[in-house]
Amino acid sequence: MRGVVYRAPGRIEVTELPMPAVKGPRDAVVRVTRSAICGTDLHPYRGEIPGFEAGTVLGHEFAGVVHEAGPEVPFAVGQRVFASDVIACGRCGYCARGHHYQCAHVGLFGYASVVGEPVAGGQAEYVRVPYADLVLAATPDGVTDEQAVFVGDVLSTAYCAVRDSGATPGATVAVVGGGPVGLLCALCARLAGAAVIVAADPDPARRETLEAFGVRASDPAELSRTLRELTAGRGADAVIEAVGSDTALRYALETAAPRATVAVVGAHHAEAMPFPSGLAFARELIVRFTVGDPIAVRANVLELIRAGRIDPSAVVSHRLPLEDAARAYRLSDRRQAFKTVLNVDQEGDGS
Amino acid sequence: MRGVVYRAPGRIEVTELPMPAVKGPRDAVVRVTRSAICGTDLHPYRGEIPGFEAGTVLGHEFAGVVHEAGPEVPFAVGQRVFASDVIACGRCGYCARGHHYQCAHVGLFGYASVVGEPVAGGQAEYVRVPYADLVLAATPDGVTDEQAVFVGDVLSTAYCAVRDSGATPGATVAVVGGGPVGLLCALCARLAGAAVIVAADPDPARRETLEAFGVRASDPAELSRTLRELTAGRGADAVIEAVGSDTALRYALETAAPRATVAVVGAHHAEAMPFPSGLAFARELIVRFTVGDPIAVRANVLELIRAGRIDPSAVVSHRLPLEDAARAYRLSDRRQAFKTVLNVDQEGDGS
Amino acid sequence: MRGVVYRAPGRIEVTELPMPAVKGPRDAVVRVTRSAICGTDLHPYRGEIPGFEAGTVLGHEFAGVVHEAGPEVPFAVGQRVFASDVIACGRCGYCARGHHYQCAHVGLFGYASVVGEPVAGGQAEYVRVPYADLVLAATPDGVTDEQAVFVGDVLSTAYCAVRDSGATPGATVAVVGGGPVGLLCALCARLAGAAVIVAADPDPARRETLEAFGVRASDPAELSRTLRELTAGRGADAVIEAVGSDTALRYALETAAPRATVAVVGAHHAEAMPFPSGLAFARELIVRFTVGDPIAVRANVLELIRAGRIDPSAVVSHRLPLEDAARAYRLSDRRQAFKTVLNVDQEGDGS
Amino acid sequence: MRGVVYRAPGRIEVTELPMPAVKGPRDAVVRVTRSAICGTDLHPYRGEIPGFEAGTVLGHEFAGVVHEAGPEVPFAVGQRVFASDVIACGRCGYCARGHHYQCAHVGLFGYASVVGEPVAGGQAEYVRVPYADLVLAATPDGVTDEQAVFVGDVLSTAYCAVRDSGATPGATVAVVGGGPVGLLCALCARLAGAAVIVAADPDPARRETLEAFGVRASDPAELSRTLRELTAGRGADAVIEAVGSDTALRYALETAAPRATVAVVGAHHAEAMPFPSGLAFARELIVRFTVGDPIAVRANVLELIRAGRIDPSAVVSHRLPLEDAARAYRLSDRRQAFKTVLNVDQEGDGS
Repeated sequence: MRGVVYRAPGRIEVTELPMPAVKGPRDAVVRVTRSAICGTDLHPYRGEIPGFEAGTVLGHEFAGVVHEAGPEVPFAVGQRVFASDVIACGRCGYCARGHHYQCAHVGLFGYASVVGEPVAGGQAEYVRVPYADLVLAATPDGVTDEQAVFVGDVLSTAYCAVRDSGATPGATVAVVGGGPVGLLCALCARLAGAAVIVAADPDPARRETLEAFGVRASDPAELSRTLRELTAGRGADAVIEAVGSDTALRYALETAAPRATVAVVGAHHAEAMPFPSGLAFARELIVRFTVGDPIAVRANVLELIRAGRIDPSAVVSHRLPLEDAARAYRLSDRRQAFKTVLNVDQEGDGS
Repeated sequence: MRGVVYRAPGRIEVTELPMPAVKGPRDAVVRVTRSAICGTDLHPYRGEIPGFEAGTVLGHEFAGVVHEAGPEVPFAVGQRVFASDVIACGRCGYCARGHHYQCAHVGLFGYASVVGEPVAGGQAEYVRVPYADLVLAATPDGVTDEQAVFVGDVLSTAYCAVRDSGATPGATVAVVGGGPVGLLCALCARLAGAAVIVAADPDPARRETLEAFGVRASDPAELSRTLRELTAGRGADAVIEAVGSDTALRYALETAAPRATVAVVGAHHAEAMPFPSGLAFARELIVRFTVGDPIAVRANVLELIRAGRIDPSAVVSHRLPLEDAARAYRLSDRRQAFKTVLNVDQEGDGS
Repeated sequence: MRGVVYRAPGRIEVTELPMPAVKGPRDAVVRVTRSAICGTDLHPYRGEIPGFEAGTVLGHEFAGVVHEAGPEVPFAVGQRVFASDVIACGRCGYCARGHHYQCAHVGLFGYASVVGEPVAGGQAEYVRVPYADLVLAATPDGVTDEQAVFVGDVLSTAYCAVRDSGATPGATVAVVGGGPVGLLCALCARLAGAAVIVAADPDPARRETLEAFGVRASDPAELSRTLRELTAGRGADAVIEAVGSDTALRYALETAAPRATVAVVGAHHAEAMPFPSGLAFARELIVRFTVGDPIAVRANVLELIRAGRIDPSAVVSHRLPLEDAARAYRLSDRRQAFKTVLNVDQEGDGS
Repeated sequence: MRGVVYRAPGRIEVTELPMPAVKGPRDAVVRVTRSAICGTDLHPYRGEIPGFEAGTVLGHEFAGVVHEAGPEVPFAVGQRVFASDVIACGRCGYCARGHHYQCAHVGLFGYASVVGEPVAGGQAEYVRVPYADLVLAATPDGVTDEQAVFVGDVLSTAYCAVRDSGATPGATVAVVGGGPVGLLCALCARLAGAAVIVAADPDPARRETLEAFGVRASDPAELSRTLRELTAGRGADAVIEAVGSDTALRYALETAAPRATVAVVGAHHAEAMPFPSGLAFARELIVRFTVGDPIAVRANVLELIRAGRIDPSAVVSHRLPLEDAARAYRLSDRRQAFKTVLNVDQEGDGS
């Protein structure tokens, strides 16, 4: 079978790989139909993850059909399924509280040994899924495989970000970051009843994309001022930081109204970012770092798609065959593609 | 000045009344421009409130401009304002916790001494507002007086109902009751991201109105079955009971999925309604009785109107001059009017 | 092996039974050291559960050591463990939300087919545990088997009741019911910081037991008056109903302060209990039906025992060998025993 | 009348001052019986508050009796009362949501114009209280004036810290800071059911004080390791930072378990503290900056004192007459006094 393999920074290859197999009663092997490239995949591609292992099969966003399943997996061979990007066991103390990313056995498809144990990724024709009884979910009628790919990561992350930001109907919400996650956060905030939404990105092309989706866009440096003008000086009731940089978090904090929550879904790695703790104390802010949890919210997210309230396929800019993965990564790295889906199963219609 | 006065069951009159005046530093007198007839007003009209006092000036939904204000009232004479239907002091233990309807000094405009102290109602040219610094709020630009009337009661009640039902984006929501409150509950549920909404009313005309607003309608006797069909047997994730009768509450409970919340905003008066406690225990339901609290949520509700996300004026079926109040009550009582606004200030445009 | 078997109302027997065995990868067989008789066991004993099957092995409160374990069970043979009374799969939609009692595969040890699939109970020398990776937990050092038995049901139920009642430090808490669950609710309420606690039971002996544990006791008929005297007329901030009868729930509702939560952990079966919905609406009560969930809270409950903050063994009135089970049931039924533990493993010291 | 006046860093004086008077309907003048020195008072004393105005009457912790009251103040002359340190109007949008420290008219007694409008402090024989209908509360029987002083600030702050930290019964709680607030946080955590509590302070004398109150003490540099040893490597379920420095917040974050909340009640002023955002993201921490709110929680805190569940007087190390204020500040500044109460009304017994 064929799959996308990381060789070195800037170099990925589609190559022949051994066929994966079920190893235990909770394992499944999925035949992938659609996979996507996530901003998180670009970190190793850009050489930003020290020690990321050459030979890793990439990809943590995928959907397909069950090819083989252990006896504890409640899905039939041939059933349409999609995976949560986060792998969790479902029985440790953290899972019992619904904190799947803190699972004692956490993993991330295609991310080598950076998070938990190494698990081969889903930008491939077949992928083994551990704890498949929990990690997989059925793709219901009315939801395409391509849409399901988003439920397994970015759309669920956006859903969690809005939930954790405490945004209520009528709230004014600011989003820092205009990439696929930021855009989906803005769309989910609208779904959750936000009255006013402003999303910020320094890239004019991304601001154009935001505006094309009906989201008011701003330069990050203007965000706080814009929000204050819209709220009689108060600031945003809820803020989402969907970038993961020091400056993005600072913009988020400055934009927050007193007693607001800043939900941080951008991945942070700093040991000592310059944090305005005086401002945070004076405004009594809540800063909530949160990794999206598809397992926890996928049922609701699927319902939103089925009901036609949101269509994540609308954010796809490129659909390419698996064999074009190297080009797809290049386009994403250069921001020439907004969101790329790899049609692994080219003949299929993704549904 | 002129006002609507309750004489006896089925008999109300528009008559000349003494001009109200400010009595203390937190009092205001409002010149009313718009007032509305609420389902709650029909209870005394129908003789359902034992001891309701003849001579009471009716009405607890109104907006207008400040005519006179005590020194502690932070509104200028001439400023556009609207009232919360619930009167609260803002300083007792209940108010400190944001439970305004349980205020030690609670009152309800135009409801004689049924709730707290008697306070004359707002279906009149002028009305005295106690604790006006808390009970009144400014009507902002972009919100008409007519819209503001709804923020002071039914729209805020619907907002609270949805919030208290725990409905999250993607939830399936059932509403029992297709009157103005039920319809607004359904619209607020959609605003809050519900994926599927079904509202039930035995009256085919009301079901037509629901459908005209894009809300799926059902006969109450079919509600539970309908919901189960839509949710693979589970039932509604969140239920709102907006009627206030024994049968309505029973339908609501039967429709609820395991672990659902049933938010009850319909006014109940029974001492011993037949309650299916076995069902409630087996499904671990939460039954939450809640009176809408405009003081708590009006800021958010106004933002929703200003942002164009909801327009409560859309549910108005009749606009009549104050002098036609007797007819307006008659139409409402016979369900020939869905929601009636009294244009007290006929020349004004309500903005 | 020996076990307690239900024959007919009022008749149970200790008899020889086939040795249970592991049937699947998530199964375990536990050698029981301690088991307890719960109020719930008295319902079939009293013939109150229509259709309760003769031949059922009774008991849902037990601890012991792992005798045999499937490959997916993360406990070693010989490891000390205790079971949750509620059996849940950990992978369905309800489990993913932490609602284990609503699990698609829910079961209750020793309760025939009343709740989910029939599963033999733990008043026996050996018991098969389905979904043992989730249903079992390790008994840590510093916690005896006898204490662990309580974590698997009544103490965790009391913990959940207090949590779900919304009691905060400084609250006034009322508990309806002075049996083992009611007493443990009162003790957990104290642990959670309640300033004033009153528990009600019509039985003077139970009131004496409550007082012996330092809990103020009341006749249920006096409860509301007592609470109002203690709170300047307000009533209890949080109420727990730990009986499961119409009158108990009514007392609970009458005792509740405005905006209080009434947590109902007593099992209800009525189709039409006379419910004071007028009172519930006027006071905006939250009535929350809730079945205790040991899986969700056992980690915290074990910590409380280990830290010496609560000792559930203190409520044990009788410790009898398994062979005396018939007598033990008789004593419990006649309220001559408060809480009885069956020392299945007589030689052991329960630690 | 006499009062404590700030002259310059390190220099305070007790001097003759004009008698305060009621200026509006919501004002009161309180005759002070007991006042206390708070850690916050030491900031201007140490010259750490740029622009703190010479001549300011100091002190925001005080209790006494009503001397004069405006018509909107529901307390009788002679009634025992205590003040919230935070002054709030009760009618702005923030107050309506219970966010009193963010009030549009916020003030802090005795803190010049640093927070809101300047208001003379309560280390004096008489003090004017704005918005006295909300800022004052009655001191109930069974609570001494000295105890009430603590309810107006530090004990309520500790109560809020524990609430906002999300500590549940059975939790492991870490407190950074062993001064009066830190100690009271540890005592409140115990009240709220924490199973394990560790408080950290670099000062061995403060660690001794903590241990004397039964609280396990640690050096801050050892805190994270200690907590990990106690929790099988997990860390603290809830952390409270009660110091307000960069290092204290870093210790707090390092000690937190995955998904823990760090409640920050120490006052921060930094523009760019070095914040470990990578750690916060990996563990999905919630960092919640929060100023204690006596208005919101004083009713519960008073109940705890009345019920004998906590006695804040136990932390008082020195009781001195008002005239000795200069010495009292010196002792506090040099950490020779743990918590000092000024007996303004020397003859009284503080009850």
